[in-house]
Amino acid sequence: MGPGDEPDVVVIGGGPTGENAAQYALDGGLSAVLVEGELLGGECSYYACMPSKALLRPVDIVHTAQHLPGAVGARLDPATLLARRDAWVSHYDDHGQERWAAGAGIGVVRGHGQLSAPRTVTVTGPDGEQRTLRAGTAVVIATGSEAVVPAEFEAVEPWTSRDATGVTEVSESLLIVGGGVVAVEAATWLAALGSQVTLLVRGQRLLAGLEPFAGELVAAGLREAGVRVEFGAHIAAAARPRAEATGLGRVHGGPVSVDLADGRSLTAAEVLVAAGRRPRLAHVGLEAVGLDAAAVAAGRLPDWLHVIGDAGTGAPLTHMGKYEARVLGSRLAGATDVPAPADVPVPQVVFAEPQVAAVGLTEERARERLGAEAVATSEAEFTAAAGAALLRDDARGRAKLVIDRRSGAVVGATFAGPEAGELLHAATIAIVGEVPVSRLRHAVPAYPTASELWLRLLEALPRELR
Amino acid sequence: MGPGDEPDVVVIGGGPTGENAAQYALDGGLSAVLVEGELLGGECSYYACMPSKALLRPVDIVHTAQHLPGAVGARLDPATLLARRDAWVSHYDDHGQERWAAGAGIGVVRGHGQLSAPRTVTVTGPDGEQRTLRAGTAVVIATGSEAVVPAEFEAVEPWTSRDATGVTEVSESLLIVGGGVVAVEAATWLAALGSQVTLLVRGQRLLAGLEPFAGELVAAGLREAGVRVEFGAHIAAAARPRAEATGLGRVHGGPVSVDLADGRSLTAAEVLVAAGRRPRLAHVGLEAVGLDAAAVAAGRLPDWLHVIGDAGTGAPLTHMGKYEARVLGSRLAGATDVPAPADVPVPQVVFAEPQVAAVGLTEERARERLGAEAVATSEAEFTAAAGAALLRDDARGRAKLVIDRRSGAVVGATFAGPEAGELLHAATIAIVGEVPVSRLRHAVPAYPTASELWLRLLEALPRELR
Repeated sequence: MGPGDEPDVVVIGGGPTGENAAQYALDGGLSAVLVEGELLGGECSYYACMPSKALLRPVDIVHTAQHLPGAVGARLDPATLLARRDAWVSHYDDHGQERWAAGAGIGVVRGHGQLSAPRTVTVTGPDGEQRTLRAGTAVVIATGSEAVVPAEFEAVEPWTSRDATGVTEVSESLLIVGGGVVAVEAATWLAALGSQVTLLVRGQRLLAGLEPFAGELVAAGLREAGVRVEFGAHIAAAARPRAEATGLGRVHGGPVSVDLADGRSLTAAEVLVAAGRRPRLAHVGLEAVGLDAAAVAAGRLPDWLHVIGDAGTGAPLTHMGKYEARVLGSRLAGATDVPAPADVPVPQVVFAEPQVAAVGLTEERARERLGAEAVATSEAEFTAAAGAALLRDDARGRAKLVIDRRSGAVVGATFAGPEAGELLHAATIAIVGEVPVSRLRHAVPAYPTASELWLRLLEALPRELR
Repeated sequence: MGPGDEPDVVVIGGGPTGENAAQYALDGGLSAVLVEGELLGGECSYYACMPSKALLRPVDIVHTAQHLPGAVGARLDPATLLARRDAWVSHYDDHGQERWAAGAGIGVVRGHGQLSAPRTVTVTGPDGEQRTLRAGTAVVIATGSEAVVPAEFEAVEPWTSRDATGVTEVSESLLIVGGGVVAVEAATWLAALGSQVTLLVRGQRLLAGLEPFAGELVAAGLREAGVRVEFGAHIAAAARPRAEATGLGRVHGGPVSVDLADGRSLTAAEVLVAAGRRPRLAHVGLEAVGLDAAAVAAGRLPDWLHVIGDAGTGAPLTHMGKYEARVLGSRLAGATDVPAPADVPVPQVVFAEPQVAAVGLTEERARERLGAEAVATSEAEFTAAAGAALLRDDARGRAKLVIDRRSGAVVGATFAGPEAGELLHAATIAIVGEVPVSRLRHAVPAYPTASELWLRLLEALPRELR
């Protein structure tokens, strides 16, 4: 082995999760190497969060301007919008990330990494040459997730999330299969770019894990933007006479037809499958150390092996992967002062119209977990605070707190409305800090900000909790 | 006395502070009457926060759009912008507020109210008729504040804040005297409306009570918007050969010339004096009960009399007045469960470009209060979080936490950057909840939101606090 081939920590996967694990290990005095076979920076930086938000922000601002008297003339220009996306993904060039890693003192090995023995990772480089890394302390698998393509779409060469974020050719019409975050966000920017979008949702609501009003507001917003939203859409078959993988974000051949179980058939120029993701664990060599994906899911791992981020068992969200990575990186480096709360609340922001931001438990989940009698809620219209109503003249939305009656602490919060995303962290801190609502009354929101929704929410609580 | 003339609580002043005091007293089972001689809803609703934010939001969104590739064509249209302002001030008609009060069960007496004896308020109505109200429990003075016009401007008929928010005639050129919130916000919208604005600031910085970087960023933003910012501008004299009070928001006559102490002379079509405000206590009858403004300032009041909001001794901010009113209203109604923290942190948002949001102690104030050795700080560039950088391609700003090393708790926070206003409440809750930074590490901000600045701020803390 050459120098650098025996670091303390080998991280397979150079996305945000892997980068944070390496950085926090390094900050604690360990050496760390990142193994990455694609772009350093990962799915999030090039194919998911970054390009989607680079696309969605101008869409949001233009739509806001169009609903604010005094602002006139705002419209989207698809070509410059796509150019903004290209700039935010650094034109799919990861030299910036490479410089960051070098500056931080993190080793980078390019190639496909897989376990070949305990604590040992074999990297197959772009030219087929192999290199073996032996971890003194730990191997961290942070390979992320990949889109699940149901069998009926396999021959169709559908778009997956990467094509949607990397769109270069806006199809005249588009079917989107799914009703989760990827589906609704992609529908938002692709409709804004000019596609006639139809959302095919298996269930009866969007954003199924969140408070029902969130999905209802987003469905209304999509419909207003010209998107057809079909609930209860069970797909029986899909066909595409001329399917060809023409490249990222380009239309993959001729028209697609989709047959629904109710007998209807739909045709569009392209189909985007956003029907879920799974951990990317098929080619990381688990079998070489006597493991498989089921062992990972069950947490049955040797002490030198850690699977975190989307590849692991936590919430598949970039920020939760990064959090796991910070905790793990610090812990590998010997930190003992990591007083994690029993249940770290998981925040999520959906950049649809309106934005939806949620953290902790929904009312339904809280009732399951705490018992119905222990749960109190309060709700307010988003426009009940002047500062929220001012954001655009067609503002609408809703906010909700879920409270544990026994402690008086917030256990969940959802905000749906313009720019709701930044309202969330206050709730996350309230949950993590276990601040009772009687104390939150003394946290004064500034007038006139949308944060004054907290006043309405606290006023709407059952009297004994106020 | 007629029916309704002997309520439990008489509130002089029907602004947000008075309304909240009445409402919370009522919620607690008392009866309450509001006395208002101008528009019900107060300064804030018609002449301050509401019209200013109605004007500033489209300015912000248009400027944002102009710095977001993908968004094209956005510009301000002064006529429709002023029409939006008119809509948000309900065309200076308070019937909506009157309906709200009636619906809430709060009595409203129109006219100028002043104390005439203990617990007694005499109201002089619009036609000169008098009515006497006798409070069973308390009289609350919530008459707000008024602009201070320095002697040298008395003969000039300058604009004050009401003319700026109520602008109907945009003067070609405008001098603004002051460097605080009113001055910088008015400069922002009046420059956007087309005035050539010069800010005359006595001191060497803007927003003097806040972290220095806040004023520096706002000064840079104003200059970029074409505003001249002159520091150390001591005004020796002002003159206006033809001064006439032509009505709210109209140019008050001919050009104004201002002589500076350094010998320079400046001339403009209008001058806005934003040199501070004082409690509006001159005509509330304090002398009838043996009191004066000094007694109010010193808190020497009989137990039946309360002076709150801008008229009182607290921070002169609408939300703090409303907070005082909620606490007082509940307390008058017998609530005992009001466990107010020793020091309720005061938040403030300045809707300039960039927005500035601050709560609690600045580093300087914390060092004075806690001793220099007890204070730790951390700072981050606003664009250090991807979610913040995404907001506009010219985003810039800064964020700072001030920590009490002994408890590890946040005691102050400042955010300056695009849409920074909504980032503040998280800090306010952290301060009120006394959540130590070691715990805040487990409050995960969603990616990619601007709230991820918290990660950068926590990472920038001294190692022993992390």
